[in-house]
Amino acid sequence: MKIPVLEIFGPTIQGEGMVIGRKTMFVRTAGCDYSCSWCDSKFTWDGSEKESIQMMEPAEIFNSLTDIGGNKFGHVTISGGNPALLKQIDGLVDLLHEHQIEVALETQGSRWQTWFTKVDDLTLSPKPPSSGMETNFTTLDFIIEKLHKEQDGHFSLKVVIFDEEDLAYAEQIHERYPSVTLFLQVGNDNLEANENESLLSDLLEKYEKLIDRVMENKLLKDVRVLPQLHTYLWGNKRGV
Amino acid sequence: MKIPVLEIFGPTIQGEGMVIGRKTMFVRTAGCDYSCSWCDSKFTWDGSEKESIQMMEPAEIFNSLTDIGGNKFGHVTISGGNPALLKQIDGLVDLLHEHQIEVALETQGSRWQTWFTKVDDLTLSPKPPSSGMETNFTTLDFIIEKLHKEQDGHFSLKVVIFDEEDLAYAEQIHERYPSVTLFLQVGNDNLEANENESLLSDLLEKYEKLIDRVMENKLLKDVRVLPQLHTYLWGNKRGV
Repeated sequence: MKIPVLEIFGPTIQGEGMVIGRKTMFVRTAGCDYSCSWCDSKFTWDGSEKESIQMMEPAEIFNSLTDIGGNKFGHVTISGGNPALLKQIDGLVDLLHEHQIEVALETQGSRWQTWFTKVDDLTLSPKPPSSGMETNFTTLDFIIEKLHKEQDGHFSLKVVIFDEEDLAYAEQIHERYPSVTLFLQVGNDNLEANENESLLSDLLEKYEKLIDRVMENKLLKDVRVLPQLHTYLWGNKRGV
Repeated sequence: MKIPVLEIFGPTIQGEGMVIGRKTMFVRTAGCDYSCSWCDSKFTWDGSEKESIQMMEPAEIFNSLTDIGGNKFGHVTISGGNPALLKQIDGLVDLLHEHQIEVALETQGSRWQTWFTKVDDLTLSPKPPSSGMETNFTTLDFIIEKLHKEQDGHFSLKVVIFDEEDLAYAEQIHERYPSVTLFLQVGNDNLEANENESLLSDLLEKYEKLIDRVMENKLLKDVRVLPQLHTYLWGNKRGV
């Protein structure tokens, strides 16, 4: 069973979340069960790049990673789209582990796959109201319970924050899963910006505002508030 | 035995290292066994603020923290100077834990204290050649061996990078302690800058250069490259 791939690139830094700053390669899969209003990778699901999708065996993905990244990396991030739609990623995780390469996954937590338990750094990012999506808490509860039982604790929650409603949603998530580290991430609603300097000052202003809101919040104590570092460096550019 | 304190502030975000983004309070102790050329807290050891040092009991520090931070925090970072000079921090760590508050420590790894094993997030930041300091590897080996045995793995190494020699030093550290997560941090040699915008573009340029150097490096695979986020937001301002 092949894996639909849209991008393979790196090494670069992971710009967000639990392993922010980590030297990593990226594999971006095509296809998503969501269609978030502010998705920064709409090309993975809106059909605009369907001609570019490559159906690849795990071994082909591995070869592509080493073609590009040589022997300069020890970490691969699988992102999407939603890679959790794909049962066949199991074989890719195993193959990377055979080569002593650690694996990170980013998914919204709308689907469970048994290979989640093998992932080294797993980020669940349920989508807040501004996305237009609705969280299935039965599924998310199930996933988090499974991870608590069968994974070694290297998983976290991440909620992107655009507005006050999103912040209330983050409170709800934190209350429901108090023992899981929660990352709050500044939303970027300026996806068309080509001019990095004004984007940067806009994003920094939003980051500072989010920090202010969280610092004064009594319910959000054990949280981490982060930007997307890659946007500070490279704006909305793809493949970095 | 009282603790010499120079600053208590927060809640704010931790701007660097293993818990970057974490909502935290800061307690900054006075006194250091080092005198790094580029230290960003020279006032803790150069005598310029010795009149401001307050000798405080753990309970007084705790009261000051709650006076300032109310019930909006669950994490305290002890920084310096070098807090590892102070045996009596033991009582502060215990008191914070009694109140379900987690504790982070930042120290260069030049001294061991038995209370290190109780710290929740421990950063050892040995200083590279550009600092003008020399690492005592016998002591650092001892500390890391003790932490491996007696702490639960929530510790990391952090090396600040100003130049190529510092990067070679980081390689040496990574080779010596391959199982400890290594953070590489962009050095800020612009400590007098008052104008945040030019400082920001300078720091971002340095960050991108450091990323480039690390991405092409075969020895530095399992590393995390990070800026000091607080300088992006607040420049060289103190108390944030």
